[in-house]
Amino acid sequence: MNETERIETLIAEKKLGELRTILSEMNPADVAIILGELPVEKIPLTYRILPKELAAEAFANMDSDLQELLIRSFNDVELKFVISELYMDDFVDMIEEMPANVVKRILNNASPDIRKTVNEFLKYPKDSAGSIMTTEYVDLKKNLTVEDAFRRIRMVGIDKETIYTCYVTDRNRKLQGIVTAKQLMLSESNVVLEDIMETNIISAGTLDDKEYVASLFEKYDFLALPIVDKENRLVGIVTIDDALDIISEEATEDTEKMAAITPTDKPYLKTGVFETFLKRIPWLLLLMISATFTGMIITSFETALAASVALTAFIPMLMGTGGNSGSQASVTVIRSIALGDVSLSDIFKILFKEFKVSFLCGAVLAVANFIKIYLVDMLLLNSDVTFMMALVVSLALFITVVCAKLVGSALPLLAKAVGFDPAVMASPFITTIIDAISLFVYFSIATAILNI
Amino acid sequence: MNETERIETLIAEKKLGELRTILSEMNPADVAIILGELPVEKIPLTYRILPKELAAEAFANMDSDLQELLIRSFNDVELKFVISELYMDDFVDMIEEMPANVVKRILNNASPDIRKTVNEFLKYPKDSAGSIMTTEYVDLKKNLTVEDAFRRIRMVGIDKETIYTCYVTDRNRKLQGIVTAKQLMLSESNVVLEDIMETNIISAGTLDDKEYVASLFEKYDFLALPIVDKENRLVGIVTIDDALDIISEEATEDTEKMAAITPTDKPYLKTGVFETFLKRIPWLLLLMISATFTGMIITSFETALAASVALTAFIPMLMGTGGNSGSQASVTVIRSIALGDVSLSDIFKILFKEFKVSFLCGAVLAVANFIKIYLVDMLLLNSDVTFMMALVVSLALFITVVCAKLVGSALPLLAKAVGFDPAVMASPFITTIIDAISLFVYFSIATAILNI
Repeated sequence: MNETERIETLIAEKKLGELRTILSEMNPADVAIILGELPVEKIPLTYRILPKELAAEAFANMDSDLQELLIRSFNDVELKFVISELYMDDFVDMIEEMPANVVKRILNNASPDIRKTVNEFLKYPKDSAGSIMTTEYVDLKKNLTVEDAFRRIRMVGIDKETIYTCYVTDRNRKLQGIVTAKQLMLSESNVVLEDIMETNIISAGTLDDKEYVASLFEKYDFLALPIVDKENRLVGIVTIDDALDIISEEATEDTEKMAAITPTDKPYLKTGVFETFLKRIPWLLLLMISATFTGMIITSFETALAASVALTAFIPMLMGTGGNSGSQASVTVIRSIALGDVSLSDIFKILFKEFKVSFLCGAVLAVANFIKIYLVDMLLLNSDVTFMMALVVSLALFITVVCAKLVGSALPLLAKAVGFDPAVMASPFITTIIDAISLFVYFSIATAILNI
Repeated sequence: MNETERIETLIAEKKLGELRTILSEMNPADVAIILGELPVEKIPLTYRILPKELAAEAFANMDSDLQELLIRSFNDVELKFVISELYMDDFVDMIEEMPANVVKRILNNASPDIRKTVNEFLKYPKDSAGSIMTTEYVDLKKNLTVEDAFRRIRMVGIDKETIYTCYVTDRNRKLQGIVTAKQLMLSESNVVLEDIMETNIISAGTLDDKEYVASLFEKYDFLALPIVDKENRLVGIVTIDDALDIISEEATEDTEKMAAITPTDKPYLKTGVFETFLKRIPWLLLLMISATFTGMIITSFETALAASVALTAFIPMLMGTGGNSGSQASVTVIRSIALGDVSLSDIFKILFKEFKVSFLCGAVLAVANFIKIYLVDMLLLNSDVTFMMALVVSLALFITVVCAKLVGSALPLLAKAVGFDPAVMASPFITTIIDAISLFVYFSIATAILNI
């Protein structure tokens, strides 16, 4: 019997005291998961059993469907409490996912301050630093002593998303320095903040892309990053747990794009059949239609094919190997762009490297292929295959692999240069192009060498 | 002129004072990057200009090639200093990357304590929690007051990787509770730790996989996670900045595996041509050889093809669309497994969902394809194409798409079940299987319906 089943049994047996004890000892993230697994009609009841603080924290960890369900079951007092306990970034995330009538009710129950902040947040573009930051940080003044700073942290800290990185601002909210709780704890109590604060500040702008923000965390190992507006005024912070989520989400998105799927932020099993269909079908259609060109190439060499039908048997191997070679190059370059390891200025270095790699790969594959055709196809499978055909196929294979790696590595960089997402230029698109190249190379060589 | 060029000019002009001032104000991560971009012969000189602390921190941020270069230029005093400043996890990472003679010199200059700890670390399996943890944490006893705790943190904290999560252990090093710096800062100074420590502890074992460790950070938003041995004794901690690196590295690894590349942890431009070739060629060879089967299928239907060469023109479209459909399903399932969203027990739910999605996708694609063949191929491109052929191709397309999605979603789960990495079962392998399925379906239907 797993946790959820044990909880269900307790609910059925109305052992609510025991239920409360068990739930109270759990981590809020686990409580959120268990609530999500309960039958819908039992969720509000179970949620109400939770101690207030835990209830609020569990709420912040829920997915939006579950949050909506609970909000619809809340009276105004309960709703006000949850709103007052959520951090601003979680609150804005929630608002963005709710239907209009629920949003309206939430905002009616929020304080004017919160309403104003939310409206500010909703103005930031999707995926910008502004849209993911939180406004709950500790701000200090530079003439405070360490002791004063501790006093202020004790006063305001309980509601802040982090108290480990504190921000020193002037009266215009301009960011002057950063002090960490570690520095405060390791300093004498009469030291003035101005003397210990870090003034070489690394920050991001409200309009910076959230992927860029996450990359700063990866590079500098920060726990929090200040977000400033155009006038360099501190408007919020992003904490490292958000950076972690961004990195994981972006990896999922890039993986989906590379497989020709429109990304979604819902977990697979929670996405409906029709929704999944809609995320996939446009790309399949587009790629299918673009395969018309490969068909045209085959048609234009139909006479040659009719003269030597055995040639057809090598088409899948040629196209497949070309596609795989191209994917290897494109995926490597796409991931390197995402990690910030390469940029457009490296294009010639990359092309030259891929040329050398493709030369080696192409040569090994061509030789292996020649031997395989000679030993397996000619002697065992198909007596129509000739020595010259084996030569034609191997030569075409070599040229295809070289072209595939060059196209595969260049296209993502060019996509990036013209402002497209490089991930979209991955396997499926490159494969379609390489299919056409490989067929054209193959038949051109075949007609030339075999005189058909 | 960028930063690195400005630094080079200062070196050339021997303005070492100015150089030191500029470097001193930089973040250690940036200093490490700039040093890596300097000409090799200027690196040791520039490194020696840095203030001691910054030099040590920059060293921890360098890649292993640069570290090795510097270690070879260090005298024993310099080497001892850097060793004493590195956190244990960074130290072990470095040791693992160095050639044997450098390792020997490093260990000769390390204290017996460090040598012993390193030897312990090297026993943990690659990618285990034990191999990535650090031993620099703050441990406290439960009968201490908050004031005592602060005193101890001030005494030992400077060398600890984090002081924000402190661990309460008994005399056998068994983990009894966790107190955060936030709790300490917000509590009265005479409170005893036992009364405020969190006793529902979430920890990982030394042998747990590091991906599992990273997933705990994602789920619970921890700043640090305790790592315990089989007897539940605290042996180390993993901090969130390591979790961030793991998530990013694993995403890169999975992406590479999905594109049939043996993963490497070096950045693309730092990997040599031959090394890149070796990471790619085994998979290309394997996939090329397995394409023999698709060739055999075509050969066995050679008579049919000779009778109706126009059929050949649709092979690339069929195989391509099948491959893309399968990749969409497999990549979605692989990523869901990596995120912990689905497991083997969901296989029937997943298959049923993919069946419904594939039915929709297959139907739309088949209809679109039929219309396309009718309007474009029959009327414009190739008068050999008949109405019945359009029917055959569309029917084969529908069946291929359904099979592709089922195979694509099932294989990663089955791979996981038998202990293989699901990511290896991505596009290239599934594509090879689907190529064979699509050709077989196509020719079977063609010979049956067209009587060839």
